[in-house]
Amino acid sequence: MVVILDGKATASAVMEELRARVEELKGKGVTPTLALVLVGDDKYSRRYVRMKARRCGKVGVEAQLHHLQEATQEELLALIGRLNGDPSVHGIMVQLPLPEGFDELATVEAISPDKDVDGLSPATLGKLLMGEGCFHPAGVEAIIELLRRYGIDPEHKRWAIAGLSNIVGKPLAALLTNMEASVTCCRASDPELAEYAREADVLVVDVARKWAVTAEMVKPGAVVVDNGNNYEGKKVYGDVDFEGVKEVASAITPVPGGVGPLLIAMLIRNALKAAERSSV
Amino acid sequence: MVVILDGKATASAVMEELRARVEELKGKGVTPTLALVLVGDDKYSRRYVRMKARRCGKVGVEAQLHHLQEATQEELLALIGRLNGDPSVHGIMVQLPLPEGFDELATVEAISPDKDVDGLSPATLGKLLMGEGCFHPAGVEAIIELLRRYGIDPEHKRWAIAGLSNIVGKPLAALLTNMEASVTCCRASDPELAEYAREADVLVVDVARKWAVTAEMVKPGAVVVDNGNNYEGKKVYGDVDFEGVKEVASAITPVPGGVGPLLIAMLIRNALKAAERSSV
Repeated sequence: MVVILDGKATASAVMEELRARVEELKGKGVTPTLALVLVGDDKYSRRYVRMKARRCGKVGVEAQLHHLQEATQEELLALIGRLNGDPSVHGIMVQLPLPEGFDELATVEAISPDKDVDGLSPATLGKLLMGEGCFHPAGVEAIIELLRRYGIDPEHKRWAIAGLSNIVGKPLAALLTNMEASVTCCRASDPELAEYAREADVLVVDVARKWAVTAEMVKPGAVVVDNGNNYEGKKVYGDVDFEGVKEVASAITPVPGGVGPLLIAMLIRNALKAAERSSV
Repeated sequence: MVVILDGKATASAVMEELRARVEELKGKGVTPTLALVLVGDDKYSRRYVRMKARRCGKVGVEAQLHHLQEATQEELLALIGRLNGDPSVHGIMVQLPLPEGFDELATVEAISPDKDVDGLSPATLGKLLMGEGCFHPAGVEAIIELLRRYGIDPEHKRWAIAGLSNIVGKPLAALLTNMEASVTCCRASDPELAEYAREADVLVVDVARKWAVTAEMVKPGAVVVDNGNNYEGKKVYGDVDFEGVKEVASAITPVPGGVGPLLIAMLIRNALKAAERSSV
């Protein structure tokens, strides 16, 4: 029987644990605080930041919202500089993508590494590659956490990652090269994608194409992680043909309800870690 | 017939080209300058730094040797700080490994990204992973350059990298994830190494074991890059059984005389690039 990797239930369990840790930290007089920086007026970004703030509130983390409706790159960098220097702020997250004209690289580079709880700055990603301690991007942590909660050890497995973004595929591959695991990386448009997918014990799909991975592309007994979010109207579809693939896989994430619900929990966990460190 | 990828001849050709570029730059009044920082008294490190200085001299790059016989971490960081601020210094290379007690990570982190011609700081490696412009480690550049000089396009190939160091395997994999190529990464001790090796169109071996890769582990027609340096007395052996594998491969690097001779040339090329940029 296939195991459905339930991200919603897992996120609830994680959030419960975070709430207890926040409580303990507050007992020491520290209120874990995450600065959420939103630039411009994109509807989706606004909604996502609001959701992050709400979830912070649920576990007792203070979300400090900085909404720069109209700002220059310089003003944005100045804000990040102030947040870097503010000891009451433990983590900084800048909602991407930034509006046109902004330099995303320079922006994430400006975040102090010990507050880079989104894990997306070059210095943080470089440490991840080197196997040095750092915050891992939420998309990476969500996948590893989900597997572990279902007793699936990420080590001693052959992984394949189809689709290589800077926020999931590439840093996940980098993490795996520092573990007792092997990993094959291919881009979303690779003509041999099906072949690589079929070799994998753990298959991560992030190709932004509805149902791109079908049952015959999956090794029997494999674990399949679907990172897809393909909208058709209000309905969202994964990159994996769930109905077909669940007959072949040993475990699979649904979409929605797989990796997605864990993303904010992982961000909050990083912010809490940053606060815990600062309180030692 | 197998093609022997001759690193010595390739390095000579590259050095010729670098000499011409240095000449041109000097015509504009800029002397490209590479600071070589050596700490302590390790015989091998001293010899290697001297060799780097000599090769710089051969193409007209000024090698500025800083030998800290006995120094503290603070003194080392202060030196790097001065070199960062010195406009006549275009590149900085700190010879690793550092003596016991030194913090290598903090040391490479201190090098300004625009002078990090060794490409080993977290910020540089993170940019490499993200596909942003940066200096690539010499070990990575050497492999790509050697293939290109023999007309072997690194793209549209299936790569395997056996053995994942911070200076070759991991950054090479990161580079490939930003190219039209696929790559399988496994550690040197992976029990499935033979299987992964056999799948590869381009196989990079860096496992620190004499002749660990034999003919039956290589796909017929594959390109094989041997990064091994296993000394027995004064004789050096690769990680690949050259005599056996050359009967199967379409191209192969010898050891010695493969990737090795290109390493210093690639470092110098990075330093020259840094100088060229600073002169614009």
